[in-house]
Amino acid sequence: MGIKRIETGDRMSQAVVHGGICTTAGQVAKGAPGASAADQTKDILAAIDGLLKEAGTDKSKLLTAQIWLSDIGDFADMNAIWDAWISPGNAPTRACVESKLASPDFIVEIAVTAAV
Amino acid sequence: MGIKRIETGDRMSQAVVHGGICTTAGQVAKGAPGASAADQTKDILAAIDGLLKEAGTDKSKLLTAQIWLSDIGDFADMNAIWDAWISPGNAPTRACVESKLASPDFIVEIAVTAAV
Amino acid sequence: MGIKRIETGDRMSQAVVHGGICTTAGQVAKGAPGASAADQTKDILAAIDGLLKEAGTDKSKLLTAQIWLSDIGDFADMNAIWDAWISPGNAPTRACVESKLASPDFIVEIAVTAAV
Repeated sequence: MGIKRIETGDRMSQAVVHGGICTTAGQVAKGAPGASAADQTKDILAAIDGLLKEAGTDKSKLLTAQIWLSDIGDFADMNAIWDAWISPGNAPTRACVESKLASPDFIVEIAVTAAV
Repeated sequence: MGIKRIETGDRMSQAVVHGGICTTAGQVAKGAPGASAADQTKDILAAIDGLLKEAGTDKSKLLTAQIWLSDIGDFADMNAIWDAWISPGNAPTRACVESKLASPDFIVEIAVTAAV
Repeated sequence: MGIKRIETGDRMSQAVVHGGICTTAGQVAKGAPGASAADQTKDILAAIDGLLKEAGTDKSKLLTAQIWLSDIGDFADMNAIWDAWISPGNAPTRACVESKLASPDFIVEIAVTAAV
């Protein structure tokens, strides 16, 4: 089975497709550094929609998600955006924990897998 | 390949089966909030046994596990329960790190994948 | 599909191969406890090369990686070693967050998946 790498660089690929599954890298809010958890979540989910489209799939085929918050106190604010984004009846598995991220500009990070 | 979602809701599914693999959401001790790490681990592993059964598999086919502890000082207490639970000869890969969880009532979270 | 467990013990396997994918456990620098983030990263990546070889694959087929740093301040030092190790054109997806690890001797932990 071949490996398709999307937006690939020297350090990482933003997504990889293999064996009928697309996995994204942990996405941070490149379009909203320093913004609120809600706004960063919106920016990230738009980026994920774009990566899934490049992979030939969409959020209705989500399998799993992992979410890191630099402050777990942002849980409710992130969830409000997340819950509205989910394709009804097609919610993935999920784990959400607190971890500091690579830059203090980013307070939310999300990685997903989806069937292709 | 179809996607089977188990105990699915607006935010997440507790497990998803796709391509011959069952992935669980991060499980917390819904039956033992505020309890010790050992007791929370027991509660979580029982929940995982239940999800794997719903998916048509069991712990002898575990592939991977991720464990988050809100205090890594609970490592030994969690491991005592974990080691006793593992199907001999069938231990999955594992990563265990410290992260605060969504509620202070929960100090252990575990997600696994298993072949179906 | 069969499950091949590599360096398996009572608690975990260091790698599992199933369905054409090798997943490693979170690797810490067993050969460099207490060393710098750069030296621990080197030790870990050598261990990962060894596990991938046992699984019949190599880093050119990496799919995903997760990296935990006990101090995100080590991000640049870890990346310098990581970037030099990556097979050009074959970078996996990646997420890197801060989490304390099982022992203070270990400040870097890395888990990967690769196509086999």
